[in-house]
Amino acid sequence: MIKVGIVGGTGYTGVELLRLLAPHPGVELKVITSRKEDGMPVADMFPSLRGHVALKFSAPENAHLESCDVVFFATPHGVAMAQAPALLAAGVKVIDLAADFRIKDTAVFEKWYGMPHSCPDLLAEAVYGLPEVNREAIRTARLIGLPGCYPTSMQLGFAPLLASVTPLVAEATLIADCKSGVSGAGRKAEVTALLAEASDNFKAYGVKGHRHLPETVQGLEAIAGRKIGLTFVPHLVPMIRGIHSTLYATILPEARGTDFQALFEQYYEGQRFVDVMPAGSHPETRSVRGSNMLRIAVHRPDGGDLLVILVVEDNLVKGAAGQGVQCMNLMFGLEEDTGLCQVPLLP
Amino acid sequence: MIKVGIVGGTGYTGVELLRLLAPHPGVELKVITSRKEDGMPVADMFPSLRGHVALKFSAPENAHLESCDVVFFATPHGVAMAQAPALLAAGVKVIDLAADFRIKDTAVFEKWYGMPHSCPDLLAEAVYGLPEVNREAIRTARLIGLPGCYPTSMQLGFAPLLASVTPLVAEATLIADCKSGVSGAGRKAEVTALLAEASDNFKAYGVKGHRHLPETVQGLEAIAGRKIGLTFVPHLVPMIRGIHSTLYATILPEARGTDFQALFEQYYEGQRFVDVMPAGSHPETRSVRGSNMLRIAVHRPDGGDLLVILVVEDNLVKGAAGQGVQCMNLMFGLEEDTGLCQVPLLP
Amino acid sequence: MIKVGIVGGTGYTGVELLRLLAPHPGVELKVITSRKEDGMPVADMFPSLRGHVALKFSAPENAHLESCDVVFFATPHGVAMAQAPALLAAGVKVIDLAADFRIKDTAVFEKWYGMPHSCPDLLAEAVYGLPEVNREAIRTARLIGLPGCYPTSMQLGFAPLLASVTPLVAEATLIADCKSGVSGAGRKAEVTALLAEASDNFKAYGVKGHRHLPETVQGLEAIAGRKIGLTFVPHLVPMIRGIHSTLYATILPEARGTDFQALFEQYYEGQRFVDVMPAGSHPETRSVRGSNMLRIAVHRPDGGDLLVILVVEDNLVKGAAGQGVQCMNLMFGLEEDTGLCQVPLLP
Amino acid sequence: MIKVGIVGGTGYTGVELLRLLAPHPGVELKVITSRKEDGMPVADMFPSLRGHVALKFSAPENAHLESCDVVFFATPHGVAMAQAPALLAAGVKVIDLAADFRIKDTAVFEKWYGMPHSCPDLLAEAVYGLPEVNREAIRTARLIGLPGCYPTSMQLGFAPLLASVTPLVAEATLIADCKSGVSGAGRKAEVTALLAEASDNFKAYGVKGHRHLPETVQGLEAIAGRKIGLTFVPHLVPMIRGIHSTLYATILPEARGTDFQALFEQYYEGQRFVDVMPAGSHPETRSVRGSNMLRIAVHRPDGGDLLVILVVEDNLVKGAAGQGVQCMNLMFGLEEDTGLCQVPLLP
Repeated sequence: MIKVGIVGGTGYTGVELLRLLAPHPGVELKVITSRKEDGMPVADMFPSLRGHVALKFSAPENAHLESCDVVFFATPHGVAMAQAPALLAAGVKVIDLAADFRIKDTAVFEKWYGMPHSCPDLLAEAVYGLPEVNREAIRTARLIGLPGCYPTSMQLGFAPLLASVTPLVAEATLIADCKSGVSGAGRKAEVTALLAEASDNFKAYGVKGHRHLPETVQGLEAIAGRKIGLTFVPHLVPMIRGIHSTLYATILPEARGTDFQALFEQYYEGQRFVDVMPAGSHPETRSVRGSNMLRIAVHRPDGGDLLVILVVEDNLVKGAAGQGVQCMNLMFGLEEDTGLCQVPLLP
Repeated sequence: MIKVGIVGGTGYTGVELLRLLAPHPGVELKVITSRKEDGMPVADMFPSLRGHVALKFSAPENAHLESCDVVFFATPHGVAMAQAPALLAAGVKVIDLAADFRIKDTAVFEKWYGMPHSCPDLLAEAVYGLPEVNREAIRTARLIGLPGCYPTSMQLGFAPLLASVTPLVAEATLIADCKSGVSGAGRKAEVTALLAEASDNFKAYGVKGHRHLPETVQGLEAIAGRKIGLTFVPHLVPMIRGIHSTLYATILPEARGTDFQALFEQYYEGQRFVDVMPAGSHPETRSVRGSNMLRIAVHRPDGGDLLVILVVEDNLVKGAAGQGVQCMNLMFGLEEDTGLCQVPLLP
Repeated sequence: MIKVGIVGGTGYTGVELLRLLAPHPGVELKVITSRKEDGMPVADMFPSLRGHVALKFSAPENAHLESCDVVFFATPHGVAMAQAPALLAAGVKVIDLAADFRIKDTAVFEKWYGMPHSCPDLLAEAVYGLPEVNREAIRTARLIGLPGCYPTSMQLGFAPLLASVTPLVAEATLIADCKSGVSGAGRKAEVTALLAEASDNFKAYGVKGHRHLPETVQGLEAIAGRKIGLTFVPHLVPMIRGIHSTLYATILPEARGTDFQALFEQYYEGQRFVDVMPAGSHPETRSVRGSNMLRIAVHRPDGGDLLVILVVEDNLVKGAAGQGVQCMNLMFGLEEDTGLCQVPLLP
Repeated sequence: MIKVGIVGGTGYTGVELLRLLAPHPGVELKVITSRKEDGMPVADMFPSLRGHVALKFSAPENAHLESCDVVFFATPHGVAMAQAPALLAAGVKVIDLAADFRIKDTAVFEKWYGMPHSCPDLLAEAVYGLPEVNREAIRTARLIGLPGCYPTSMQLGFAPLLASVTPLVAEATLIADCKSGVSGAGRKAEVTALLAEASDNFKAYGVKGHRHLPETVQGLEAIAGRKIGLTFVPHLVPMIRGIHSTLYATILPEARGTDFQALFEQYYEGQRFVDVMPAGSHPETRSVRGSNMLRIAVHRPDGGDLLVILVVEDNLVKGAAGQGVQCMNLMFGLEEDTGLCQVPLLP
């Protein structure tokens, strides 16, 4: 049994890790930290876990995280990079759900996250936890920087196009019009996320610039092996979970004959958690609610030169905790889908 | 034109006052205070008011509230009682949307609101702003304590039963099972009011005791002229606006022959803002969305001895700002429904 | 492996059965019928089942239901009683999620469901599928009439009070103020269930009388061994899943000394799917979303004589499909919670 | 007073017309038709109108529409073109909220709406009811084809760019990623619009082709005086009202120096119902809820060559009924905003 610790168990990615790990057959939950809730049973804060999780929150200083095999950080940005060095030195693997180990260029990290990076050497070692792209590196990694929720959907949506040796689309002018449920903002008390503010409403935000842009560009360029250009416009949807990314790419004249449906199906053949739907499909976010599946549909309206890729995922599962468990399974030699076979909850 | 000031214009009752008062034909909006937002145009915070409200927020010390004819307090409990004495002394009328002037017994006030009452003499003078019950007193009042949102629905729902000279129902065992949209909790950053927490969810809260209980009991006893007993169970509905109160009263054996539908229709005859619906109706909260109307339906399931009264109101209008404007109209000799003729927004 | 057939797989209880049965370790899904969708892969209608359910819908006449060990009816009222006799004769067990085998008195059935009962003898044999009350009878039953969603919550909420040999509460004047998400109305195209009608709205319905009243009274009288009286007021909540029942019972003078919290805890001790929460709790519907758990909290406001019982369940799980699987497990000698250990989905 | 008739008063655009016209100071509501609801008071179907609309539905044959000054058609496609000729002959003006008089090319109409056009001569005469573009023609029109909800937002969002004599953006590759609340689908009983299907969910639809595409292209080409190309991807948002269109246009090299914020502000200067927000704004749909206002924000992320235009409107007001009233005001010489000064309902 893998001994698991969770740092920061009071947010949405924390409780989602608990939902997935409590019944996971290869895992023993050892410790969950929260300075503020030290001593409180986890199930008192989240009654949905009554009967499933018997642990209490521990203050970090009493948590003995070094006795775990792996520690997940479901914390604000900056926490994982402070604690990872000691844990790694103690032989503990680390999976960070925040942004500390995502962006390889420390200057870019500091620009977007407003803090210096305290361990650039570990950053260089860290593996970007997107199994469909980096599976082999993840298997042997000690330290994982998990992708953000939007970046997961954008990268897996564009990847089959960009992975081609010769460019198929105008890679300098990609557009991602993304829509997220409000759990993406986390379990923080903020006026804009109140039901009375965010329900029966729709808006864009962060059009000037969003932290998930540089991360996504870095990932797409790694896939393409070429420079790319991306405009990313996020929107807030009055729903709890789910991301729907509508991606636009202009087909190059020389690639007009490509069968894009086949291209996507081949690229993702054998991938357990990516479902390329039949041509003409309109995936719904609820079709992946509570599951680690990501679904894609490829459209070419009117047979023209603009490709429209529709991608849905559950931002808390494939976009966060589920992808973390998927990486953990790979790192410890388990079947990749162990504990991740939930049927989506519909309706 | 009535010169109006608003203290605390950044919450939901504040912005609702602005929605109602901006186009009100008898009103000139003079000042809106907010210490935190001093100098910011109101319409920058609430873009819905662009083109309707040109005012900026003023810090309280620069607000010259004493030059107004009437000042509304849309503030946390405790603010109005600190400022009302000076305003009243300056000849300004005061309408408090908070609880400072609702509960006549200062010991009861202090128990439920956790603060001493600073001006018991004004409290004694204050008129409870429920026009359907207190219209004449309101006309000549200087100081109004507006009812809470739940208490408005409970009092107007039970009033026709309790106003009878001889009791019709078992007055010691009244039950009010009430359901409110989340705007009732105000525009405060709290985790429990987040869309991700409160939507697709339903729960009771405060079953042990809620501040609106003593206020409602006081009001019902004033209507009855007798002691009454009430159990009040509030619930949170995943919607923005609206209160639905389901009231239960046991018919006394000697009152079994009463025509309760007729009783309600007669009691509310001529009341502009109370709509007794046809027998058998199920009023919906959306049927009053954005309007000052309160709708009531009277049921007697299976012809038995339990009366079921259904009451709906918009908690921000008849339950708060609208009722305040209704009182203001009465206090300044305007038609009672001036500026309050909005057609509810449906769907 | 238990060979399972489902009649009527296109509604919400049908798709919920599929969600629970597809990963159930003791079950082999053999057939799902739908006359209208004959030949369509189930996962084409419900993409959430892609990769989990490979079956196609079959027209009833080709379904070979008699080769199954058990057949679930997730159909409109009247279908199960037409087909059950032949299936039972062929040795197939039957679990009906509709009302055909709930109400023992055929006159009452006919009054509320507007159709004659075609097999009163089977009705007499049928076992009411509420395991916490009827576990032993369910183990040996051939034919199960599953409780309705509201009746499950009302019966389990009142049961500990009524099961006492000497009455504890005024049993003639019980009140159940119940609130349900809209999936309770089924997957039928009806204007009142449209998002544009039902969201941001709250209303009561069926106050004059609802089909779940006679069923609940029958169940409560069976538990009590005495006549009882119940007023049941259902309401529609703008959410997908979940029932919250707020139950009121007046404590008899001689029972004022009872420790009701202890009474409930003892009554449900050892019950896998009933969670009596700590005193003072307010259970939320989302705390059971997607799971077969029902949670109860016992309140006695102000120490008075009115008991307030709060009950939550997922109407599609403990209120329908999950309870059906729980009964199936008992009927086939499996552990009662096999395939029913889902952690609720929160947020 | 303008005598107004409404054909088809039972849908969402019908009830919205009633909400706007009942208190309109220049209008007398004469007749509302509905074959199915003949004789039923309108307020029985829509209790929100109790006290505001006293009319009953009339069967069309008894409706005496020819005695009206203007008749609104809030009907399915095809009804208006059948009845308009006789009404116009009787001197009655006609405003059609459906698609009968929008598309000038009858072949295109027939392709997208699946029915032949029965009066091409009137179609040629009909004026497209977009006042910000066609104001003078509307003033003297007898027959108005009102724009669809999506087309209103797309045309007003792109218009300032396309109206330039020399092209500013790549007009062949415009993209409109649009999101609509579910009331846009009308008050029809359809499974996909149920709350249990559409809430807590997000999806694209009609990516292959949507009826609002040819209408929008026709309108944009009329504005530009040049051919344009548009990809239109509509999405369904789990909210009642509101459209948010996110528009993408690539700036031509020669136009990189343009001040697009100023361009939009100048283009819409003096327009009562178009609000060009300050640079950097993110308009929310709720900021126009219940009002005839359309708000626009202009973005140029990172100062690059892609322009992102955000547009919000209430699909039932500026996208339908409100725009109809705006046209009516123009046609009868009233102030354009008569009866259209509602403050948006927020929260």
